[in-house]
Amino acid sequence: MTPLQKRLQDAQTPLPGHRVVFGQARKMPLDCGIEFGPFAMAYQTYGKLNAARSNAILACHALTGDQFLTGEHPITGKPGWWEQMVGPGRPLDTDRFFIIGANVLGGCMGTTGPRDIDPATGKPYGLGFPVITIADMVRAQKLLIEHLEIDQLFCVTGGSMGGMQVLQWAATYPESVFTAVPIAAAARHSAQNIAFHEVGRQAIVADPDWSNGDYLLHGRNPARGLAVARMAAHITYLSEQALHRKFGRSLQNRNRVTYGFDADFQVESYLRHQGSSFVDRFDANSYLYITRAMDYFDLAAEKGGILANVFRGTPVRFCLFSFTSDWLFPTRESRAVVQALNAVAADVSFVEIESDKGHDAFLLDEPEFEQTLRGFLNGSAERRGID
Amino acid sequence: MTPLQKRLQDAQTPLPGHRVVFGQARKMPLDCGIEFGPFAMAYQTYGKLNAARSNAILACHALTGDQFLTGEHPITGKPGWWEQMVGPGRPLDTDRFFIIGANVLGGCMGTTGPRDIDPATGKPYGLGFPVITIADMVRAQKLLIEHLEIDQLFCVTGGSMGGMQVLQWAATYPESVFTAVPIAAAARHSAQNIAFHEVGRQAIVADPDWSNGDYLLHGRNPARGLAVARMAAHITYLSEQALHRKFGRSLQNRNRVTYGFDADFQVESYLRHQGSSFVDRFDANSYLYITRAMDYFDLAAEKGGILANVFRGTPVRFCLFSFTSDWLFPTRESRAVVQALNAVAADVSFVEIESDKGHDAFLLDEPEFEQTLRGFLNGSAERRGID
Repeated sequence: MTPLQKRLQDAQTPLPGHRVVFGQARKMPLDCGIEFGPFAMAYQTYGKLNAARSNAILACHALTGDQFLTGEHPITGKPGWWEQMVGPGRPLDTDRFFIIGANVLGGCMGTTGPRDIDPATGKPYGLGFPVITIADMVRAQKLLIEHLEIDQLFCVTGGSMGGMQVLQWAATYPESVFTAVPIAAAARHSAQNIAFHEVGRQAIVADPDWSNGDYLLHGRNPARGLAVARMAAHITYLSEQALHRKFGRSLQNRNRVTYGFDADFQVESYLRHQGSSFVDRFDANSYLYITRAMDYFDLAAEKGGILANVFRGTPVRFCLFSFTSDWLFPTRESRAVVQALNAVAADVSFVEIESDKGHDAFLLDEPEFEQTLRGFLNGSAERRGID
Repeated sequence: MTPLQKRLQDAQTPLPGHRVVFGQARKMPLDCGIEFGPFAMAYQTYGKLNAARSNAILACHALTGDQFLTGEHPITGKPGWWEQMVGPGRPLDTDRFFIIGANVLGGCMGTTGPRDIDPATGKPYGLGFPVITIADMVRAQKLLIEHLEIDQLFCVTGGSMGGMQVLQWAATYPESVFTAVPIAAAARHSAQNIAFHEVGRQAIVADPDWSNGDYLLHGRNPARGLAVARMAAHITYLSEQALHRKFGRSLQNRNRVTYGFDADFQVESYLRHQGSSFVDRFDANSYLYITRAMDYFDLAAEKGGILANVFRGTPVRFCLFSFTSDWLFPTRESRAVVQALNAVAADVSFVEIESDKGHDAFLLDEPEFEQTLRGFLNGSAERRGID
């Protein structure tokens, strides 16, 4: 068994803790100017890397996702975030492709983030963790891909913040990406989205248990603030139609309102559950850092504000998806990327999926989305010479 | 000077504290089943009541508004919330109409609310305050109108929660309302809007200074929680377009991002200011109670779910307004009311105003809105025989 095989085998085991450490001999430069390291990347793989090492797909996760794409999550016990998309016979077909999930830099599922020990102090980083960017996350992923001895990814895909990473991969490492599939994403975070993130961050830092970021040192957890942040964010992941269809004004296990502040309405009960279950699996400081990375994302800014210049001469084949009822990353954001790609005659396909499920549609059962993605991947695989 | 004249003169003085007490001899029944009283109603009037007592307009305020429609607010020092709409020559013309602003039951600007002393305990009500409804607010307003010896209001108008009160007035007291002008309103609070309110309430109760509602007793103020609630709500009052136009991704007094958690973006700084300035003028428990009243609002529920039945045979002349970019109370909510009114052959006009300012458009300079409202009021005044 080669060292690579050993690493791959280890990563198959569905437990956080299968990690590889980078930035020891040579630290990794971050956008903020710091040289960062050492740091661990936690990842999972699904399927087999072929002999030509040409069938690897990197599936980038969203704000609160992680490396566990499918199967029972070792922490939550729930299915992976892309359960319906990854597996034998599914669009990201594990019989054909080698699929990599990796926890982002700054995350809290095994990759180094603010809750890990800063070797310089021996204490958790907390707010001492450097403010990272989407480009920094991608830089760290590139080290992982090199570690797996993959020169070119067959595909980089992901939704929401995952889609931002896809665009960043195509921008920074165009030769290392055969196809790019950004889903429900944008080339820059909008004012409204920055505003919603800021509400979440303020909810966290308003919680006295946050302790100026040092809650781990003090044995505390700003769970109430983090739950409020999650609740506010969760509304933005759904459409008004989806909330109306799922809950409307239905009451929760009662025939009439109670004239009180209990969760009379099902939608309140649902939202409270979203908040309270989230705090069991997510770190409050990671939430601050990852939302900040999204706020800072503005791909065109690197090229004088002209998005087309980011992709000039790109060899990457693109396929973009948006969803009609997504008001967090609305279709116009994807269209702006498509227009930029068209302006430089890039190979680009774009499908707006009719759905009333809002932003979260990319995580849910959407047959037209799955079918279209399957078609694009299979067609591209043929072109790439993948069996 | 008659007692009425004296009361009206007193109410002209722009200070909170000009109040009238109800529910002493006979308590007021609330929807929750409690008989409530005594309680004070704080109000302001603008213009003169004519001899026929036929020119009175009640302007109902939204969630965080109050009785100060125009002129310098005695607490905040800012203009009244309907400054551009109320005054000599303005659509709510003080040279022609007698305009009444009244703080809602449960409010915190002089009308009895949870921060006032409960005579039964000698302590502030806190969570001992009864959970009120929009119908309860309107019931209390009706007592005020009777106190002012007005049999029929020429017009009841208001935006957002104010518009809910307008609809409730028309439903409960149709003979006491000549015209009804609900603006940016709905006949029932949507699941998404209940969800946003629940986030705000959870932000408040998550603040340890809230002290289970007894913060006044403990000399505390849940300012951080209330600020977060306000920030989340404020985003919903604006449109994505308005946020993009006003702020986009512009930075706040800096040339580049700071790689930190300061308010790098103008939109963050703006939002923080909205939160911190709000807590100086609003009571956290009032926020809980008033949002709850809005959540509970479902006019059709009183009539077996058929909204048209609420208005069958109504003599009221209606004029509804909505704004194209309002996603909190979108046009379809107003249209549902218009359809119900049409189904019972009511006298109804409806105008959707083209605006990119979102829900708050009804508070802002919108010439087409002002012109249309002016026309409706003047036409109706002629019909009512008001000089």
